[in-house]
Amino acid sequence: MKLKEVKKIRRKAARFLAKARIAITSGERISMEVADFGLKDHKKIGLEVVIYESNDRYCAKELVLFPRQTCPEHRHPPVGNVHPGKQETFRCRWGEVYLYVSGEPTPRPRAKIPKKYKAFFTVWKEIRLRPGGQYTLPPNTLHWFQAGTKGAVVSEFSSPNTDEYDLWTDSRVRRIPKIE
Amino acid sequence: MKLKEVKKIRRKAARFLAKARIAITSGERISMEVADFGLKDHKKIGLEVVIYESNDRYCAKELVLFPRQTCPEHRHPPVGNVHPGKQETFRCRWGEVYLYVSGEPTPRPRAKIPKKYKAFFTVWKEIRLRPGGQYTLPPNTLHWFQAGTKGAVVSEFSSPNTDEYDLWTDSRVRRIPKIE
Repeated sequence: MKLKEVKKIRRKAARFLAKARIAITSGERISMEVADFGLKDHKKIGLEVVIYESNDRYCAKELVLFPRQTCPEHRHPPVGNVHPGKQETFRCRWGEVYLYVSGEPTPRPRAKIPKKYKAFFTVWKEIRLRPGGQYTLPPNTLHWFQAGTKGAVVSEFSSPNTDEYDLWTDSRVRRIPKIE
Repeated sequence: MKLKEVKKIRRKAARFLAKARIAITSGERISMEVADFGLKDHKKIGLEVVIYESNDRYCAKELVLFPRQTCPEHRHPPVGNVHPGKQETFRCRWGEVYLYVSGEPTPRPRAKIPKKYKAFFTVWKEIRLRPGGQYTLPPNTLHWFQAGTKGAVVSEFSSPNTDEYDLWTDSRVRRIPKIE
């Protein structure tokens, strides 16, 4: 992504956080991670992340999703002999988010996935999270999520960050953003 | 504390969370921890805690402090051979909180401690946290905190909870609440 575009998206995400009455520092706004997952379709497949704390014992982030924006399907595998894979708790703070995990597929899921991406979304058990709702994912389990029509702000509490080891169902996905 | 009093305090804390625009579930409101630390002076020395997630890898809580309410001085010691002591990140979400850690004492600290408790507050390096401000405490280091005149809501992200092992400067303090 071009830096100009990244900056515009950061400003937009900051407005969503303001709507959710979540305060971030100017440093956090400037360094906010904007992920397009290498698919160059950020409006549909993208995520905005404020990392509050990331150390060798735990991690806490605020995630911003624009209306209908989707974080693609992935899992957090074991890393080395010590870490059984990142464990995550998602807590919806504002808006609405649909989280999908393995299990009995939900008959009429709320998330809408464009046809060209459908093959890369394989788990369809829906967990609907509204403000105050939360869900903890076991390590190494497939999941993906999409915001509702208003967008969403979601807190993520987790074991240490191992994002660089994530395994994506769509092998074209690249987690680490490239800013041109 | 009497259950009736605990319920009243839970309702009050829920109002503070509502002011901070933080949504909790009715289950979380009903099970909210009200700590008077065994000192029977809850208005001054007390804390309200919503535990979002507590597992063997990380912990996340929302802390509510009423105006000028104080969490007394303590540290989180190593537990067994594996845990080097609980590590905590405090992030102010609403209001204002004064956190005290060891180091050069702040000349005119903002927190006010009643004379009878002064001997049990030994670290006076002040960290002032307003919304968006945060601080990570190394394990096993003394700390205490007091809300400003408006009260405060503070997110706590940490390594696994070991509250039952906390060491308090005032040996009368009991962390686990007793509801009559």
